[in-house]
Amino acid sequence: MYDLLIKDALLVTCDKKHSLYQNGVMAVKAGRIKEITESGSAVADSLQAKEVISAKGQIVMPGLINMHCHAADSLFRGLVENLSLEAWLGRVWIAEKAILTPKTTFLGSVLGLAENLLSGVTSVMDMFWYPVETALAARMLGMRLSTGGIFFDPPGIGGRTHDDYVIEAKEFSATFGGSSDIFPATMPHGTYTVSPKHLISAKSIADENEELFCTHAAETKAEQADIQNRYGKSVIRHLASHGLLGNRTVLAHCVHVDDHEISLMAESDTSVVHNPMSNLKLGSGISPTFMMQEAGIRLTIGTDGAISGNDLDMWLAMRLTSGLAKGVSMKPDVLPAKDVLHMATLNGAEALGKKLELGSLEVGKRADFIFLD
Amino acid sequence: MYDLLIKDALLVTCDKKHSLYQNGVMAVKAGRIKEITESGSAVADSLQAKEVISAKGQIVMPGLINMHCHAADSLFRGLVENLSLEAWLGRVWIAEKAILTPKTTFLGSVLGLAENLLSGVTSVMDMFWYPVETALAARMLGMRLSTGGIFFDPPGIGGRTHDDYVIEAKEFSATFGGSSDIFPATMPHGTYTVSPKHLISAKSIADENEELFCTHAAETKAEQADIQNRYGKSVIRHLASHGLLGNRTVLAHCVHVDDHEISLMAESDTSVVHNPMSNLKLGSGISPTFMMQEAGIRLTIGTDGAISGNDLDMWLAMRLTSGLAKGVSMKPDVLPAKDVLHMATLNGAEALGKKLELGSLEVGKRADFIFLD
Repeated sequence: MYDLLIKDALLVTCDKKHSLYQNGVMAVKAGRIKEITESGSAVADSLQAKEVISAKGQIVMPGLINMHCHAADSLFRGLVENLSLEAWLGRVWIAEKAILTPKTTFLGSVLGLAENLLSGVTSVMDMFWYPVETALAARMLGMRLSTGGIFFDPPGIGGRTHDDYVIEAKEFSATFGGSSDIFPATMPHGTYTVSPKHLISAKSIADENEELFCTHAAETKAEQADIQNRYGKSVIRHLASHGLLGNRTVLAHCVHVDDHEISLMAESDTSVVHNPMSNLKLGSGISPTFMMQEAGIRLTIGTDGAISGNDLDMWLAMRLTSGLAKGVSMKPDVLPAKDVLHMATLNGAEALGKKLELGSLEVGKRADFIFLD
Repeated sequence: MYDLLIKDALLVTCDKKHSLYQNGVMAVKAGRIKEITESGSAVADSLQAKEVISAKGQIVMPGLINMHCHAADSLFRGLVENLSLEAWLGRVWIAEKAILTPKTTFLGSVLGLAENLLSGVTSVMDMFWYPVETALAARMLGMRLSTGGIFFDPPGIGGRTHDDYVIEAKEFSATFGGSSDIFPATMPHGTYTVSPKHLISAKSIADENEELFCTHAAETKAEQADIQNRYGKSVIRHLASHGLLGNRTVLAHCVHVDDHEISLMAESDTSVVHNPMSNLKLGSGISPTFMMQEAGIRLTIGTDGAISGNDLDMWLAMRLTSGLAKGVSMKPDVLPAKDVLHMATLNGAEALGKKLELGSLEVGKRADFIFLD
């Protein structure tokens, strides 16, 4: 006897083979997928469950994975328009300093994560000032979240120093490490706001428990010029030279990357998060996703925060991911829908280190799925 | 006594000065705007009308103008993916030939125009095989439409020849010319499908009655190569050399245009329709809209057909127009919301030769407006 049986659905499994079941059934027990098959077969007929849902006319697919978000920034949506990242951050940080406390961060996180959830996103990688509050918001909403200690060298929100960030990151990991819903990471803001020494410190905390390391990288030309000027290397080379790439590293943006940097990321199995709307709105540029894909980089998709893209809509992000790649390359066959679906599901799960748990509808994985009309 | 009074609205007039009324009132009589002002003033208090609508919490703005559409192609939505324009057209034309008749064109036009209308578009420039049917569909829906005789040299739908197209174009103009809802145009498909002689023939029919001339132009690199090869000139130069530019000419796409071509269009007061999603999906490229705007070209926005962009959503088209310009130029201040709103309203009205009638909420213009939640 299963707990739940979904039947009559178009099952879009997002497994490696892109298996589709036109008239699919899926059986769930104890939160795991136990069977997934076409209806009418001997297996389907024999399935019995406490609850049966007919999903006739609906698509059932894995929950989407938004790999780069600042959920609580939904409090500031629409505040800043027509500015570049650097000028934009100047305004955003003033607004954040004016109102952010653990309590307002919790409220903003609920707002931003709920918008994700309502559009079919069930797992989010989020970077924000009070990560514990975002984790509690995700728990309240029944979502999965990767987040963790922030690192930021200039005076940040709440007057914290590097030593405070180290303590908070370790506490976050101790509190949430090993849980089934919160996946700890350390999250230095970027190479232009965190010194190499502090980047390494953040990475070592992540490494201790085999957790994730996530930072903004190579988002704008101004950032590249700054890092080149300070360290004599472009952003990705700078990260590589300090041993910060790897299969538990997640780099948000990567708009300005050359062939060698693409090789560095591919060879180290680093994950990249493409944030198409944010890159457009802030005039950061258009990421060479199709070149990164060709090089074998694990590409994932994010919305970024609601002030850098005006919404948290992963469907628009997916559509733009495909469209921008085709438009920039002038090759209409790059990044077709199948590839983009994987970026928003299976690749995200792999980047989170959860490929055996999430990202596709397969026997043994969690029953983490959405219905689409 | 007015026919209609709208009150308590945020009035986004889209007039040249971008006038906003936070608590606006608008009075309408015989289909025209007679007053538009802030509430609470002496004028507002004195207004009386047969019908009064409180639009509290809503935005009232002019109906959007979709300047390039193939509404009836909504019948084929989703049919062709991951192909370039040329290969894509090969498939689309087969599908069109298989099912298009005047009757199915009418049904498809209702479908496509209704999608426009439901998303706030009240005027459309449409190019399709049986323009009379699209005009009748627009009338049934109470929309404004610019369309007219198609021209196409290869064997087209319904086995028509150039002589047939000439007769149909003249008949269309005779039937609808001077009406308040249908604005006739002649619509040769493109320089690669219509000979110079037939382009000139189409333009002369439009010129006879001071009507519009609209064609696809400079959409892809392959098209540019083809025209360069055949006529020794790029597409816009080719059109210019035959006297086909001007303030009643509307060119759809203009993705691949150089500085001289931009000058030719600006000097001749030619209108350009940007179709961002279609240009992305088909891998045509990204139009240098911000450069055309700087040169003083009248830029308008279109959705193209539902098979080349997957929807007919002018809001997405507006958002992409702003975002793509910022992303490609890496200048976050180009094409801000105000400019894009004008492209989708006032510039469209001007391109249609209806700037005294449509495109903004101003005293004397038609009461052509939409409510937004």
